[in-house]
Amino acid sequence: MKMLINVPENVVADALRGMSAAHPELTVDVENRIVVRRDAPVADKVGLVSGGGSGHEPLHGGFVGRGMLDAACPGAIFTSPVPDQMTRAAAAVDSGNGVLFIVKNYTGDVLNFDMAAELAEDEGIQVGKVLVEDDVAVTDSEFTAGRRGTGGTLFVEKIAGALADEGAPLERVEAIARQVSQSCRSFGVALAPCTTPAKGSPTFDLPAGELELGIGIHGESGRERRPMMTSGEIADFAVDAVLSDLEPDGPVLALVNGMGATPLIELYGFCAEVQRVLDERRVPVARTLVGNYVTSLDMAGASVTLCRADEEMLRLYDAPVNTPGLRWGC
Amino acid sequence: MKMLINVPENVVADALRGMSAAHPELTVDVENRIVVRRDAPVADKVGLVSGGGSGHEPLHGGFVGRGMLDAACPGAIFTSPVPDQMTRAAAAVDSGNGVLFIVKNYTGDVLNFDMAAELAEDEGIQVGKVLVEDDVAVTDSEFTAGRRGTGGTLFVEKIAGALADEGAPLERVEAIARQVSQSCRSFGVALAPCTTPAKGSPTFDLPAGELELGIGIHGESGRERRPMMTSGEIADFAVDAVLSDLEPDGPVLALVNGMGATPLIELYGFCAEVQRVLDERRVPVARTLVGNYVTSLDMAGASVTLCRADEEMLRLYDAPVNTPGLRWGC
Repeated sequence: MKMLINVPENVVADALRGMSAAHPELTVDVENRIVVRRDAPVADKVGLVSGGGSGHEPLHGGFVGRGMLDAACPGAIFTSPVPDQMTRAAAAVDSGNGVLFIVKNYTGDVLNFDMAAELAEDEGIQVGKVLVEDDVAVTDSEFTAGRRGTGGTLFVEKIAGALADEGAPLERVEAIARQVSQSCRSFGVALAPCTTPAKGSPTFDLPAGELELGIGIHGESGRERRPMMTSGEIADFAVDAVLSDLEPDGPVLALVNGMGATPLIELYGFCAEVQRVLDERRVPVARTLVGNYVTSLDMAGASVTLCRADEEMLRLYDAPVNTPGLRWGC
Repeated sequence: MKMLINVPENVVADALRGMSAAHPELTVDVENRIVVRRDAPVADKVGLVSGGGSGHEPLHGGFVGRGMLDAACPGAIFTSPVPDQMTRAAAAVDSGNGVLFIVKNYTGDVLNFDMAAELAEDEGIQVGKVLVEDDVAVTDSEFTAGRRGTGGTLFVEKIAGALADEGAPLERVEAIARQVSQSCRSFGVALAPCTTPAKGSPTFDLPAGELELGIGIHGESGRERRPMMTSGEIADFAVDAVLSDLEPDGPVLALVNGMGATPLIELYGFCAEVQRVLDERRVPVARTLVGNYVTSLDMAGASVTLCRADEEMLRLYDAPVNTPGLRWGC
């Protein structure tokens, strides 16, 4: 498997050097693996910190900037960052108004963010935490007790980031992050597996002519394999899986997310089918975002995330955001 | 080859339906294959129209919006749009101040935009034209007499779009588009070929362990094949190929562009190496853009575009842009 890399052990550090070169508005600590807004800490603002294994770019480092995260802690590929990264990040972004940790539900991330929260509190930093566990495909998985955290993370970071940008206190930022997290559901499919640089071969086998329904963002097993389906059939399956768990009674935010290697023209075609299914199910879609946001290296496939959105959440979703990976209104 | 599609013959129409669903700020005419700003024609503004074969998304439809294109005409996959699309687009965006056609240098596109310009002028629309021919890899290629038009198109559309947004007359918008076009050079590499939906198998063979240096965005032959190289070696080769033709004497804009299937983490690592080479060659980089912008379906690989930029071009590059694929400042 050919990759555009130097050596596998330097992939994360090389990418951070590139982020540093391309984004002067960020402070990138390559050695300690922390990406921080250059203007951090922002006075009178709750600091938002997230992180997780690398390989899901632009999540999380690409979501650092005004209106979203204040800092991100990338781990090695598909490997949790360590508590020391998170504690340093918290110290870098705390303006005295406290810090919110946004944690995808993988056992390593949960343990390490818990430990980092204790360490940060020992240093006098007030810490809130919210867990993202939006993937309806399976309960319990290779790296997770409970549901996995996937595409819903984007909505949590965007909406909580917007409220923090308005100067809301930690208690309110944490509350809306939790509300968004509880309002999101996701379902993903893989058409081809991903290859980690260290392994150099696909993380799982997927026979020609089959797809995996309910894939995780590290290639964890989903619900089942089936002979290849059309975009429309996949949209039916994925949206119904999400809706059967979400039961929206009003408008939703929709994320049609690429896993990394699926061309944008296919993602837009899939978006059309997702919209068709939602129309058929009489679910009004308030906003749709299409692109590669929560990826899995070079996996081919896509995921659908729906988020029940009240007026306040819509307002915050629309609010200005200025990050490498998501930018509007500023 | 598995794809997230319904049937190959509907890939472009399905994607346009998805764009329509996701982007209420655009008017998408699925039948006639035209993507137009919803607020077109914008009073007292030159209209910018581009187009070309599909499969390079977000180029061009994803670059329609304030500060960039007023309309885009997508052809079938890797196939020029027809003159009727371009004439309709010109009529839709002309406010009486004329229209500029931005044309990538492929024989079909050049012929069809020429014919469309004549037809539009017959209808009383003043038309300017600029050709983008930035790819230094080869002279003459499968679909091109002269150099191919690739990544530089983004800079032409961005900078000319910003000047048009300020209300400059057609003569000036055409002049700066030509200046940008002449100031851009690009070079691309493929690590894995792309697969068109209609063919269903890779457009060319690339043996395991080899890469193609100087690839075109439709998989056209480049300069040579070599055993796989590191990211740093590829950056040396690509940047030197560009610089040997560009000879910048001041700051450049840099685009580190993914071909579609290469993960963002690899693109950022490659960006670090591009920056290193430019530092070594003492070329100051004013701005760097990293991501999948001028793609080739699911091709793996990347391209580097450099653009000599004077102060006016930098100012216009930084100006507000609000499109699905490129957005800042508004």
